[in-house]
Amino acid sequence: MSGEMDKPLISRRLVDSDGSLAEVPNKAPKVGILGSGDFARSLATRLVSSGFSVVVGSRNPKRTAGLFPSAAQVTFQEEAVSSPQVIFVAVFREHYSSLCSLGDQLAGKILVDVSNPTEKEHLQNHQSNAEYLASLFPACTVVKAFNVISAWALQSGPRDGNRQVLICSDQLEAKHTISEMARTMGFTPLDMGSLASAREIEAIPLRLFPSWKVPILLALGLFVCFYAYNFIRDVLHPYVRKHENKFYKMPLSVVNTTLPCVAYVMLSLVYLPGVLAAALQLRRGTKYQRFPDWLDHWLQHRKQIGLLSFFFGMLHALYSFCLPLRRSHRYDLVNLAVKQVLDNKTRLWVEEEVWRMEIYLSMGVLALGTLALLAVTSLPSIANSLNWKEFSFVQVKQISLELQLQLGPGPA
Amino acid sequence: MSGEMDKPLISRRLVDSDGSLAEVPNKAPKVGILGSGDFARSLATRLVSSGFSVVVGSRNPKRTAGLFPSAAQVTFQEEAVSSPQVIFVAVFREHYSSLCSLGDQLAGKILVDVSNPTEKEHLQNHQSNAEYLASLFPACTVVKAFNVISAWALQSGPRDGNRQVLICSDQLEAKHTISEMARTMGFTPLDMGSLASAREIEAIPLRLFPSWKVPILLALGLFVCFYAYNFIRDVLHPYVRKHENKFYKMPLSVVNTTLPCVAYVMLSLVYLPGVLAAALQLRRGTKYQRFPDWLDHWLQHRKQIGLLSFFFGMLHALYSFCLPLRRSHRYDLVNLAVKQVLDNKTRLWVEEEVWRMEIYLSMGVLALGTLALLAVTSLPSIANSLNWKEFSFVQVKQISLELQLQLGPGPA
Amino acid sequence: MSGEMDKPLISRRLVDSDGSLAEVPNKAPKVGILGSGDFARSLATRLVSSGFSVVVGSRNPKRTAGLFPSAAQVTFQEEAVSSPQVIFVAVFREHYSSLCSLGDQLAGKILVDVSNPTEKEHLQNHQSNAEYLASLFPACTVVKAFNVISAWALQSGPRDGNRQVLICSDQLEAKHTISEMARTMGFTPLDMGSLASAREIEAIPLRLFPSWKVPILLALGLFVCFYAYNFIRDVLHPYVRKHENKFYKMPLSVVNTTLPCVAYVMLSLVYLPGVLAAALQLRRGTKYQRFPDWLDHWLQHRKQIGLLSFFFGMLHALYSFCLPLRRSHRYDLVNLAVKQVLDNKTRLWVEEEVWRMEIYLSMGVLALGTLALLAVTSLPSIANSLNWKEFSFVQVKQISLELQLQLGPGPA
Repeated sequence: MSGEMDKPLISRRLVDSDGSLAEVPNKAPKVGILGSGDFARSLATRLVSSGFSVVVGSRNPKRTAGLFPSAAQVTFQEEAVSSPQVIFVAVFREHYSSLCSLGDQLAGKILVDVSNPTEKEHLQNHQSNAEYLASLFPACTVVKAFNVISAWALQSGPRDGNRQVLICSDQLEAKHTISEMARTMGFTPLDMGSLASAREIEAIPLRLFPSWKVPILLALGLFVCFYAYNFIRDVLHPYVRKHENKFYKMPLSVVNTTLPCVAYVMLSLVYLPGVLAAALQLRRGTKYQRFPDWLDHWLQHRKQIGLLSFFFGMLHALYSFCLPLRRSHRYDLVNLAVKQVLDNKTRLWVEEEVWRMEIYLSMGVLALGTLALLAVTSLPSIANSLNWKEFSFVQVKQISLELQLQLGPGPA
Repeated sequence: MSGEMDKPLISRRLVDSDGSLAEVPNKAPKVGILGSGDFARSLATRLVSSGFSVVVGSRNPKRTAGLFPSAAQVTFQEEAVSSPQVIFVAVFREHYSSLCSLGDQLAGKILVDVSNPTEKEHLQNHQSNAEYLASLFPACTVVKAFNVISAWALQSGPRDGNRQVLICSDQLEAKHTISEMARTMGFTPLDMGSLASAREIEAIPLRLFPSWKVPILLALGLFVCFYAYNFIRDVLHPYVRKHENKFYKMPLSVVNTTLPCVAYVMLSLVYLPGVLAAALQLRRGTKYQRFPDWLDHWLQHRKQIGLLSFFFGMLHALYSFCLPLRRSHRYDLVNLAVKQVLDNKTRLWVEEEVWRMEIYLSMGVLALGTLALLAVTSLPSIANSLNWKEFSFVQVKQISLELQLQLGPGPA
Repeated sequence: MSGEMDKPLISRRLVDSDGSLAEVPNKAPKVGILGSGDFARSLATRLVSSGFSVVVGSRNPKRTAGLFPSAAQVTFQEEAVSSPQVIFVAVFREHYSSLCSLGDQLAGKILVDVSNPTEKEHLQNHQSNAEYLASLFPACTVVKAFNVISAWALQSGPRDGNRQVLICSDQLEAKHTISEMARTMGFTPLDMGSLASAREIEAIPLRLFPSWKVPILLALGLFVCFYAYNFIRDVLHPYVRKHENKFYKMPLSVVNTTLPCVAYVMLSLVYLPGVLAAALQLRRGTKYQRFPDWLDHWLQHRKQIGLLSFFFGMLHALYSFCLPLRRSHRYDLVNLAVKQVLDNKTRLWVEEEVWRMEIYLSMGVLALGTLALLAVTSLPSIANSLNWKEFSFVQVKQISLELQLQLGPGPA
């Protein structure tokens, strides 16, 4: 079927992709596009500049032609789909059925579904767009691809973080053909298996940091609460009681007192669900039963909570290092020295305070160092290179060490 | 052989994996499991919740049934292996031969070897478990897979750092079938080539940071030695000689003096083996001879030693930034000011000390900055995106710059 | 064709690769090498130690034999290519035509092109070396592979950052065979598609941080300019006008004043091209026209410019934290206290200066924290795991936040 496309396939001209077709007059493989929206236009631009000969099928070619790059041929749908082996379907799901009249011409060809459902559509339809398309055109091979790529990335060429094209299909050869096309266009194809994966692939562009939303809101909530408490204790209380103006502490000192509180609470929230899960398993007497949903979600968000804890810990360190840079710190020191002289005291030294601070600082640095290791091992590329024994060694041992280090001595 | 499984294969239901089989009454592909251990049970749980119909083969089905999820069918081995095309072998290597009686029923099917040898077994047997299984059942296709996944990850669903399933087999189609199954179960299959890779794959779960053990022990050893020396010099000696109580320096100051010593020695240990290797090649007059084992090991551990050097350098920076936060620092400053006043000295300034410290700090920051670049380029994902010219440029040039920067001026 | 190599293929002996062939007397698959240069020798060493039986073809076997490991058989070209199925072509492009006489013996075999063009050759020839080889030997299957590996990595075994072997060919089976060989040799094969990719693969070893050159030069240029200005303002001017010796400020203070200037300018250079591009699109009235080359290059270098901005920001933070560690800082403080006492002033406090510094420090830490997130998301492995909505959310939102935070209050 797609056998004839396998060998010479595509003349790659990635380097000088200026859109001119002078070099490849006849050999350029033909590709069809159905649709005239933003994505269709960007796709056409990219395909033309990657050396393909593009035919766009439209119900109103005259009106549409102006929107496409001049190198693309815009014609009626029936004509557009007749010669190319690969046809991109860049129309909305609700218009798929309107293409049914093209069924006979499309038979035996590869249809590439590039569509993305809206959040509502995704929840309503249990069948992915690609599977729906496949059910409408049983004589065609449907490949899901390019939906994770933005129209902008298509137009301007692939950039970092936009390089991967997830591809799935039930037919290996068709998948191979589209993978090669993606490569020619400068993307990195990633095989995601059979067409049944389409639903999952279609869900990807919908999400926006799903696993981070709750942990971040939690951290912000904790920050606001602790900040309010510390503001009342360190600034408002002295002002009301002794009329001391310490409002200058708001941007730095109060924030710095708040950060470790948030970091500690977050860190304990990493540890707690494991304990609860173990307790639940002991009470149930089995470990082959599912945890309740809330606990399962909690267990799955431990990494995000831990990384936020590290982030707040880092900020605390940076804020602390800023303390001696403050003008107020300088003034306090000088004033203290002057006061000592005026009071005729020659030596200032409180052994206990010295010891407490030295130990606290030392432990703090060690805690930050181990948290940093924890954060590094959760980078995807590092995590993939560890086996599960190593991964859990770092992630579990570290956290318990963490808690022991930090819950020891407190700051002055 | 596995042709009938290729097309519809598996109905993916990853999203709502609650174990109920209501939706997929008959179409669910059948999968067999031999074995009733912890791993077999976790595997069954995961397979059931991913929409497979699971048949477990046991020599004592009545006793075993209670251990498995109720959706899994537990029966005698002969019955269990009759209908499914894919059978997971979750028994220990020493019991493989007991399965030989099933040989006729298993013929033409795919056997998935999920076993992990113990450290002792791995050293004793030159043939991997999977290859041994293949030799016992020449009429079957053996696929090695899932052994790098922990029973816990199987049960609770894949997590970061546990997503990759390494798969190898001599038969492409069988490998493809099991890859698809892994994807359906939520894992990321990774093709590791022919069954000869099995031994390597079986070795992965055995290792625990093998390349880090020696460097870490070395660093700790160095730390202890230097700490002892600095403790005697900075704390014990003044106490014995002048009865000055400087024990408060133990947690922070002494540690901070020790860290750069360790970092320097480690950094020179990164550099030294390259020099030795070059010298050896010059003396031998050829570069096509292998280095002695100790030198080869040393050369291979340079990255780990370098990263530990960076870690100690980082800790040194953090500890240094903590110095002005100490109470003792504040008291010392105030006492110095008071002393100046009492001595009637108006201006304190030692030009040489000022210069020495400024240069030392400036060089230190630059050294840390370049070491940080070095550390970043050794992240797997970055290293993969560099060509070898770029990699060696960063890694070699940096280190020599490092040494030049640091071995220049010393701290006050 | 290569069917007989598919099954038993290669006996993997990665663990003890000492070059002895005792264990695999007859079964070792035969591999041919044409060429006797450095790369050919390293290749032979690696192949021998990975368990292959190597035959080297030379025009002068007697002279050449001494250069190769003794386990490799060195003979005349005609003899060398007769029996192996896979032949590595390790000669320069200009000598490809001299191999034409071997055409008949080579027919039906796999030729592996390992060559790397020089920069000049790459620009001159529009056809890649591999495609040129394929055109000379139409009866052979040409595979491009191993050119991204250095001779050193071949000899000493794969190290991090040198593991990936990029492979391309028009024939799937041949690609599979060479992939397996690469795996046996300890490398990680990466399928790059059809032979048309060869030109791209051949370009990889030529580049040396191409996307970093201009941004780094720019940053250094900016640094020199700003340093000169700050040196004149903070050191030279006070010296000339008031004869104050502040030259000690050169290594630390002046650098620290210079760093944020560079970081700000770089950060604005990340933002500017986007604004220019939008303006251009508005003026042109279309977004389907290519930007001028200079703007396109600028847009593509934003990531590098942003990371350098982060690097300079980091250095600024580190330098700032060093400020209170300076001797000059200590002396200044003590002298100020003494002066206060002598002037009989009891309290030093400038409310405005206190506030300005507190806010500046707090904003600085937040800016650094968000820049750090930006830097982390541009790590390849993280960027790949984000969809484009998430990626642009972090990268765009952050930068604008950045500018708002930093262009607010200035340092005292």
